[in-house]
Amino acid sequence: MIPTPYLLFLGDAPDPLAAKVAQGIRDWRPENAVGQFRMEGCRADMRLPDMEIAEAVEAGAKTLVIGVANRGGVISKGWIAVLKEALAAGMDVASGLHNLLRDEPELVAAAEAAGRTLHDVRLPPKPYPIANGKRRSGKRCLAIGTDCSVGKMYTAIAMEQEMRAREMKATFRPTGQTGILITGSGVPLDAVVADFMAGAVEDLTPDNDADHWDLIEGQGSLFHASFSGVTLALVHGGQPDALILAHEPTRTHMRGLPDYQLPSLEELRDVGLRLAQVVNPDVYVAGISVNTAALDEAEALEYLAGVEARMGLPAVDPFRQGAGRLVDGLR
Amino acid sequence: MIPTPYLLFLGDAPDPLAAKVAQGIRDWRPENAVGQFRMEGCRADMRLPDMEIAEAVEAGAKTLVIGVANRGGVISKGWIAVLKEALAAGMDVASGLHNLLRDEPELVAAAEAAGRTLHDVRLPPKPYPIANGKRRSGKRCLAIGTDCSVGKMYTAIAMEQEMRAREMKATFRPTGQTGILITGSGVPLDAVVADFMAGAVEDLTPDNDADHWDLIEGQGSLFHASFSGVTLALVHGGQPDALILAHEPTRTHMRGLPDYQLPSLEELRDVGLRLAQVVNPDVYVAGISVNTAALDEAEALEYLAGVEARMGLPAVDPFRQGAGRLVDGLR
Repeated sequence: MIPTPYLLFLGDAPDPLAAKVAQGIRDWRPENAVGQFRMEGCRADMRLPDMEIAEAVEAGAKTLVIGVANRGGVISKGWIAVLKEALAAGMDVASGLHNLLRDEPELVAAAEAAGRTLHDVRLPPKPYPIANGKRRSGKRCLAIGTDCSVGKMYTAIAMEQEMRAREMKATFRPTGQTGILITGSGVPLDAVVADFMAGAVEDLTPDNDADHWDLIEGQGSLFHASFSGVTLALVHGGQPDALILAHEPTRTHMRGLPDYQLPSLEELRDVGLRLAQVVNPDVYVAGISVNTAALDEAEALEYLAGVEARMGLPAVDPFRQGAGRLVDGLR
Repeated sequence: MIPTPYLLFLGDAPDPLAAKVAQGIRDWRPENAVGQFRMEGCRADMRLPDMEIAEAVEAGAKTLVIGVANRGGVISKGWIAVLKEALAAGMDVASGLHNLLRDEPELVAAAEAAGRTLHDVRLPPKPYPIANGKRRSGKRCLAIGTDCSVGKMYTAIAMEQEMRAREMKATFRPTGQTGILITGSGVPLDAVVADFMAGAVEDLTPDNDADHWDLIEGQGSLFHASFSGVTLALVHGGQPDALILAHEPTRTHMRGLPDYQLPSLEELRDVGLRLAQVVNPDVYVAGISVNTAALDEAEALEYLAGVEARMGLPAVDPFRQGAGRLVDGLR
C-alpha cells in the first residue's frame, strides 16, 4: 500500500488533461490529497493549497504522487530535484509513468539515503497468462471512447459509486495508473507485454457472482492510431455484457494526433459492438457518457438531449449528473 | 541487425518440421545460409554443405542461427558446447527460442570473452516510440487473417519475392521471430509493451520511395480473443494501403479457442477495412490468400474459384500458385 495522504505533484503540466492522475485522486479520494506542488509553467490546478515540500510534510503528506502523465511517460530532468527533495524530507514517491522511478539512479540513491520507498504503480505486479476466451460468470461493463481521455475512468468509478449506493454488487477494475493509485490494485494495461494484454484483463475480471458487476476502466480508443490495440485487448479480454460510449464534444481532433478526426458515436457503437460480439454475442450499449466540462450547464443539457434523441440511449455527464441513468441502462 | 551470412544450426532436430526456422531461411534467403551444422541424430537437412565451426568461419559465416525448435524447452548441454565454440571462433549467435541465450551464464561469458553478441530475437532490440499516426511516404501491404497461423507470413514473403522478380521495390517487414531470423531484423511485436506496439510498427515501416512497398508480416487476428490487440496495432501502426485477407478453409474453430468460430471472409473484409480506414481512408483489399495445404489440388482450385467468385477478388494459395495475382491486385 502507498502511504496516504498525498502531495499531488503537477510538475509543468502543459494542460489540465495532462494532470488526470491528480484530478482522479482529487475527485474520488479528496481526503487523500493535502496539497499540490506546481512548477513554473504548470497549467493544471487541483484547487488544493500550493505547498512547498516542507509545508506538505508539515501538513502530514506521506507520499508525493506524480499526478501528471506526459506523453511517452518520461520523467523529466526538471522534476528530479523536486522528487529528491521530497525523499530527503521523508516522503515516499509514487508514479504511474512508463519510465520507472527505480530506473533513475539519482532517485534510487536519494530513496536509499532517506529510507523511503519508490512506488512504480505502472509496473505489472505479476506475470499474466495468454487469454483463453472462456465465458466467465458475473457481469461486466466497459466504457469505450471516441478518443482517449474522454472520461472512461470517471464513468466506471461513478457507476461503481452509484451501484454501491444502491447496494448492488459492483467493483471498479482499474487498468491505468490513476485507478491503481486510487484503489491500490489493478492492471497497468499499457505496460503489459502485447501477448498478455487480453489475459491480464481476464485475470482482472474473474468469475464472480451472477449479479456482480465489474466496472472495467477503459483505455485509449478503437479509433486512436497510437493506442487502439490496448483498447481491443480490453474489449476481448473484458468480455463485456454492456458497453458505455464515452465522448467529449469539443475535441477538434484525436488527442495527440492533429490529422485525425474523432469518429461519430454511431461509428463507435457499430465498430465497438461488432468487435465485442466476438466474445459475447449478447453485448449491448447501455448508455452514453459525455464529458461536458467544456460546456456551460445549458449547453451541456442541450447537447445531451440531442445525443439522447439521436442515439435512442440514455446520455449523461456522470460528473454533472451522476451515473444513475447509466446504471439504469444495465440489464 | 543480425550479421549475415549464417551458419544454420540444426542441432539434434527430431524431424524436419522442428527445423522450420532454418527451412524459412533456406527457402527465402538462401544467400544468407552458407552451410548447416548437424549433430548426431539430426533428422533435418537443408541440403546445404555440412560444416564444422572453423569451416563455416572460413566460408564467411558471421552468425550461428539456431534454426531448430528444441525439445523440452531447454538449451541442451550438447548445444552449449557448439555455441561456445562458434562464439570463440568469432561468430555471433542468434535464437528465437523461449529460453534466452542471455540467461545461459556459459554463453554470456563466452560471448563476452570473444567480444561477440547473443541475439535473442524474442526480445525487442530497442525502445520504441508511441505511434504518431503521421502519414508516411511509400506503400504498405498487410495480410490480416480470419485466424492465427493461416499463412500471413508466407503471403508477405512470397509477395516480396514476386515483386523483386518483377524489379519492383519491395521489403518484407518481419513482426515475428521466424521472419526476424530469416531477414536479420524486424520487430518481435508480441513481446513489445502494449503502449508502444503501434509505434514499433511505424518504426519498422518508415518513409520510403513513393513506389516502394513494405510487405508487413501480419500477426494474430482481429477476431482472435487472445491476440486481437496485437493485430489492431499492426493495422493502425502499419498504415496499410492494401490489405490481403488470409484464410485456412478447414479450420473448425479459432486456434487455441475451441468455443470460437472463425469469421467469414466478408466479415474480415468489412471490419478490417473499417479499422484500417482510420489511418488510411483509401485502403483497399488487394486479394485473398488461402492456405490450401489440407486440400488436394482439385479441391483447392475449386475452393479458390468459389471464393474468387463470391468476393470479387483474386483468391490464390501463394504456396501452390505463387503470389503473382496478389501482386497484380496492388494499385
